[in-house]
This record gives sequence, C-alpha cells and structure tokens, in this order.
Amino acid sequence: MKHILVIGAGRSASSLIQYLLHHAGDRKWKITVGDVSLALAEEKIKGHPSSRAIALDIRDVSQREKEIGNSDLVISMLPASMHLEVAEDCVRLRKHLVTASYVSKEIGALNEQAKKAGVVLLNESGLDPGIDHMSAMQVIDRIHEQGGEFISFRSYCGGLVAPENNDNPWGYKFSWNPRNVILAGQGTAQYISEGTYRYIPYNRLFLQTEELRVEGYGMFEAYANRDSLSYRKPYRLENIPTMLRGTLRMPGYCNAWNIFVKLGLTDDFYHIQDSEKLTYRELLEAFLPAGPGTLRDRLIRFMGTDLGEGSISRFDWLEIVNDQIIGLTNASPAMILQQLLEEKWKLQKEDKDMIVMQHQFEYRESKTPNSPVHLITSSLVVKGEDQTYTAMAKTVGLPVAIAAGLILDGKIRTPGVCIPTTKEIYEPVMKELESLGIHFTETHS
Amino acid sequence: MKHILVIGAGRSASSLIQYLLHHAGDRKWKITVGDVSLALAEEKIKGHPSSRAIALDIRDVSQREKEIGNSDLVISMLPASMHLEVAEDCVRLRKHLVTASYVSKEIGALNEQAKKAGVVLLNESGLDPGIDHMSAMQVIDRIHEQGGEFISFRSYCGGLVAPENNDNPWGYKFSWNPRNVILAGQGTAQYISEGTYRYIPYNRLFLQTEELRVEGYGMFEAYANRDSLSYRKPYRLENIPTMLRGTLRMPGYCNAWNIFVKLGLTDDFYHIQDSEKLTYRELLEAFLPAGPGTLRDRLIRFMGTDLGEGSISRFDWLEIVNDQIIGLTNASPAMILQQLLEEKWKLQKEDKDMIVMQHQFEYRESKTPNSPVHLITSSLVVKGEDQTYTAMAKTVGLPVAIAAGLILDGKIRTPGVCIPTTKEIYEPVMKELESLGIHFTETHS
Repeated sequence: MKHILVIGAGRSASSLIQYLLHHAGDRKWKITVGDVSLALAEEKIKGHPSSRAIALDIRDVSQREKEIGNSDLVISMLPASMHLEVAEDCVRLRKHLVTASYVSKEIGALNEQAKKAGVVLLNESGLDPGIDHMSAMQVIDRIHEQGGEFISFRSYCGGLVAPENNDNPWGYKFSWNPRNVILAGQGTAQYISEGTYRYIPYNRLFLQTEELRVEGYGMFEAYANRDSLSYRKPYRLENIPTMLRGTLRMPGYCNAWNIFVKLGLTDDFYHIQDSEKLTYRELLEAFLPAGPGTLRDRLIRFMGTDLGEGSISRFDWLEIVNDQIIGLTNASPAMILQQLLEEKWKLQKEDKDMIVMQHQFEYRESKTPNSPVHLITSSLVVKGEDQTYTAMAKTVGLPVAIAAGLILDGKIRTPGVCIPTTKEIYEPVMKELESLGIHFTETHS
Repeated sequence: MKHILVIGAGRSASSLIQYLLHHAGDRKWKITVGDVSLALAEEKIKGHPSSRAIALDIRDVSQREKEIGNSDLVISMLPASMHLEVAEDCVRLRKHLVTASYVSKEIGALNEQAKKAGVVLLNESGLDPGIDHMSAMQVIDRIHEQGGEFISFRSYCGGLVAPENNDNPWGYKFSWNPRNVILAGQGTAQYISEGTYRYIPYNRLFLQTEELRVEGYGMFEAYANRDSLSYRKPYRLENIPTMLRGTLRMPGYCNAWNIFVKLGLTDDFYHIQDSEKLTYRELLEAFLPAGPGTLRDRLIRFMGTDLGEGSISRFDWLEIVNDQIIGLTNASPAMILQQLLEEKWKLQKEDKDMIVMQHQFEYRESKTPNSPVHLITSSLVVKGEDQTYTAMAKTVGLPVAIAAGLILDGKIRTPGVCIPTTKEIYEPVMKELESLGIHFTETHS
C-alpha cells in the first residue's frame, strides 16, 4: 500500500484526483486530499473507499509534518509561493514531491539535500510548464539522436475557449486564474532570433505579435513570453540561433488588449483614489488625456495608429463605459479591470475550454552547413469535458498524477530537484497521456 | 560653543558646509564633516579653524554613536535609504537632525519618540523637496489669511544648464545623480484636475507634457511627478480641485526622451544578455522590431506618430548608433543608457547649471462662489557659480544649513518629525535665503 498526499483541491486538481482514484484499486494507493476547505476536498474524492479528505492548513506545522510523514509521495497543487515548506519537509522526511510549478531559487537550492535523501522533487510537471517540456524534448532528443541540428524552435501555448462556445469578439473566457491573465506579460520579453537577442517591453508586447495556424482550428496569434532564454540549457539547445516561447490568443485579442495596457488599466502597483466610489466611466476618464468629444472618441484619438481593426468593437463589447459603481476599496487598476472582465469573460455552465499548444522546429539533417533543412510542427488541442474536468484541469493535473504514479512504481527514480526534460520522465508520462487522449499531431515538411 | 556634525561631504554638501564655516566664528559653531572619503571631507573644510574632517563610516556603530553623541545637531546628507540609523541615534541621544530627504515611513514612525525627547527631526529641507514647500506655503498661508480659497496649484522644478552653456539640442546636462534622471517618472503619475483624479502611466508620461513660461528665460516643458496628491494635506489644500507637481525640461526634451522609454532603454529591472560584448548599435537593434531599412529608418517607423519635431535630430546628436563596445557586465538597459549619456551630457568645466522653479496659484478672493479669481505666478531661477558651488549645491544645501542654524538658535523649536511647511520654519529660512540671492519673483493677474 502506497500513500499519496494531495495538498490543494482547487480547480486544477480535479482530473489529477480523478486519475489517482481511478487507479487506486489496482495500484494499491491510498489517497489523502487536504485543502483549507474540507468541503472542497470531500467534493473531489466523492467518498471513494481508498481515499480520505481532510482540512489541511499548511501553516499548521505539526499537522503538515504529520500528514507528510504518513505519506510516501506528496503532490502539491498549492500556489507556487507556498511550496517551499512542503518541499523542505519532504526532503527531511524522505518523501517524494511532485508539483506543476516553476522551480524557484529556494526549491532549486534543495537539490543536493534531495539527492542525499534519495528523494525525487519533480516540478514543472503540469501543462505549461510541463507538457510543453516533455513534448518538446521528445522531438529534440529524437532529432539530436539522428544527428540533426536545430536552427529554430518556437513554442506556443494558450488556454482558450472551445470554438463551439466562442461567442464573444475577444475569443476569450477565463479557464484559470483571471488575475494572471490581467497581469500577463508585465516586464520585458526576452528571446533570441537568428543569433540576436531581442527585447520587447510590456508597452508594446501586444503590438508585436506573431500569427500561426493550427490544423483544423485556423489562425491564432501569440505574444512573446517573458523568458524564452533560460530553457535553452535544459532543452539542450544552448547554441540555437532562434528560440521563442509565446502565449496564444485568438486573432485580434492582443491589439484590443493593448488598449488597456496603453491606458494603464493593467497596472497593479498602486491604488486608485476613492476606487470604491467611482464608476467605470469615471475610471476610464481618469486615464484618458483631456480633450473634446465623447469618451469613446477620445479613446480612439488617444490610441491613434496603435488601434487595429476590430479592436474598438471588442472594447465596446465589454461595455466598460458605464455608470455602475466599481465598489472595490483600495483597488489597483488591474483589480478593477479584473472585476469587470470576470463578469464578461465567465465560462458559462455549458461552455468547454480548450488548450492549444504548438511547437515549430526547424533543423538541419546534419551539422554540415548545407545539409537539408526540415520543419516539424507538433500541435496539441485538448477540449474540456465540463466545468470540472476542464481541458486546463486535465492537461495540468494528469501529467502530475501520472508522474506521481511512475515515481511510486520506481520507474522515475533519479533523485534531486528536476523538471521533466529527461527521457526517464517524459517517455512514460507522454505515453500514458496519449492513452488518455492527450496527443500531439506532427507534420513534417 | 555648539557642535554640528555633517555626515556626507558630496556634491550637494559644498554650499552647505561653506555656509556653516562662514558663520562658525560669530555664531560659535564647531563643525565636524564626516565622509567615507576623508579626502573629500578635508577638501570641503579647507582647513578652517572651527572645523575638523573625519573619515566616517556610518555602518561603524560605535564611531557613529560617538560622533553623534559629541554633537548638538546632525546634518545628514547621506542617500535617503541611509538616514534611519542616524535618526534613531539622534532621538536616543537627544540631538537634532536636518536632512534634505523625503520622510520615509520608518523616519515618520519616530515622531512620538522625537517629541518626547524634545528633538527636532527636520526633513525635506533642500530644494525639491524643501524650497518648493517653503515658497509655496508663504503664498498659501498668506492667501488663506486674506480669506482666499485656492482653485488650482501647479508647481514645477527642474535642474538644468544655464542658457549661456546650453549647447546641445536636448538643453540638458547632468547637474546631479544621472541615475535618477534615467529612471525619472517610472511608475504612474497621479494628480487631480478640476476635481477629477488623473493618472498618467510611464508609457505616455513624456508625451502628455505641459508648457510654461518663466519671465526672462522663455518656455519650458514639464512632465507630471509621480505624486501630486499627498502634499494636499501638509499644504492645507485638502479640497483643492486642481493640483499638479511637475519636473521641468527644455522644450522638445520630453518627446525625444520618449524614444528611449518606448524602446525600453530606461528599464532597470533585468540585465541585457552579454552586455559587456555588445556595441551600442547592437543594443539598439535588440530593441527595434525587425524590418527593412537602416536602423534609423526603422526607428522612425517604430516611433510613428509619437515622434515630435526635432526629436530624431536630438537622438542623432547622441550618436548612439555606433560600433563602440558597451563594456559593462550584467548591465540593465538603464545602466547602459546612463553610461552613454554621462559622456554626452557632461557639465563641462566652465559650464554653469541652473535651477528653475515655478508655482502657479489660482484662487478666489473669498469663499463666495462668484468672488474674483486671481493668479499668482512665483518663479525662482538660480545659476551655479562653478562646478563646486553649483545652483544645485546652493539650493539643496543652503536651506539645510540655515535651518540647522535656526534650530541651534532656538528659533525653530517644535520637536518631532517635520517638514518645512510651518511658518516657524519657512519664514526665517526664506528670509535668509533671500539675503543670499535665492528669491522668488511674484507676478499677479
């Protein structure tokens, strides 16, 4: 009997817990699901005999240590900032840990200790990061083994709404943390193109987009992720001349979103004076330069040549120029925008979300400069089943659950802090994902 | 005999120390000037008999306590972030303190203790903050006493170069910390206009400028300071419908500066890859979207309608498109831009700097709605004498020195953490400044 402790029973843990429960019988697992909300944990286990739900507050040190101590492996679906204490307990108590979060400096620093303790601390095992690493490495390792050399790698991912439920001009609804969508891209995007480092500051990130086609799903657009450079090393692409990671949206979204960026409505580092008393119209007024004409006329003039086709009708659709009271105290512009959008971009009961990922590889057959160049496009589209088993929940949770099972089976065994870029991890995880309907389509040219 | 300890003997302490030494004889002062550089401290006291220079490292707690303990009043010209320990010592050892820095939260929290200890902790007593507060309060208190009510208050200040030495198209040379000039305006400017709060994010701060005229010196332009709201209370203008504080530049500067803002070259929160090996041309290339044409053509296209008259010739004058190696390791874009500009905007040996300040008040004669409206414009222009006794050194240092003398004379005596917005402080300081040639010209209409 192996004991798995799942910490956090939120939205993205649904498919994960479902997978664990489904396999609990034959693989002899006992599952404990802990959340600050006992009700949420109970809802997820549905009274399954191999499972228990508990109220778990990870700030309660003795409870945390007890539950981790009683398990063989811990899955932490907590927000990234809350993993550290759990990871430290896991190393000390010699328990494996799987998360879907980026490796923080602090987690990275546990590597030597984890190795000594013989413990696997596997991170970045969800969708993005997660499936992106694993699916890219499948192709990269294969081409390298064939003696090929990569010229270019572009990788895109987006959490969108299924085409059949895409009934707003933004082509967008929230299928995960809305706050992250509002704040997306702040900072400066860094990538490399034909051997030259390129920087796109936030003020023009949503104007410098790329277009791509996904077979059967039409065109998408992408804005550059903040960091496309740091994965060159783990991907074994140290000297690749072009590498870009981007986030997908439906065409037209980015140019319209830039209205909010240019106005300053996505800023989150200060509070709007009297935000609880203002109307949305007054908020907009506060960000527009003074001048003649209606607010909408002034907005169009203000945006000038930055305004692309269809953007103002996307803006109009949000009905932000209204006399409703905002009603949020000490709110940043981003918090206010989020409140408005959460209403407009709500995933409705019957709506299905959709995950789209595409890798574009360009490589030479061999290291000889004139050897033939080939393209591989590898694409994944996953749609959600309903509001619980969303595409987001499936693609984030299933690889985590699969990897956890593989660690307990001794199939993933290299100890230390790691991400799923090695064959030991990505091969069995991708194989199992494929059997669950999460598979990439490759085209070659 | 009263003992004054001056901590920090840098550029802005020159006139301050000169004033103290000049009065040391008749006012029975003994002056100690401490700096991490003994040579710098010695250079400033010039062997004056009532003074001594010491090497002083404020991180050396016992030395710091000893020197503060031996003084009656401390003047701290340290960077703002280093005042706190000095202020805490001053309260504990019951010594008065004068600084030219903004009141931090931590310094503000010492208020009750300072009151109990009978100690004056006077901050914001330089130019801006300092003379701006004092000169504004002279007018504000006077009009309030006459029963008037303010409709609008705009206040501008800039450290520039004297017209006779203004020989570059930017109309700008560095007369103080260049880093602050590069990073100026980052965040979001907040002010109030006709009763409506207004916000200008950094991405368009240098495009939404105002023009003003200073009699005898022609036109200037101003961009909004980050915070124009928090001074409404200390200025006793709680309900004023319009209040804006801004920074002055020569006309055309702001639009040209916006080239660097839009490119992303003023960002300071990340490092450019391989910054030590790149040339300036390559740096610029990394920030410009790809496209046909020369780098300069692409820049013009990139700036589009944001580019005002004369801006591209200002850009050309900086010769940033060159093949010199940057040579700075792990440098942010802002650090690289600073290195280039420090060379181009260097105040030459014979150059004089110039401080310009202007307040524009609009007020009703009485609280009756239809009472006549008047305008007062109050302007100050100060030119430097040379590279040591710059206008910046005079206007920052003299009010600090004068206030210190007034505290020792018992003329400023209200204990606690304060800024010079009360008559007790601004009246005698402004009177003495006037006798030193620092005086405002008022026009009425």
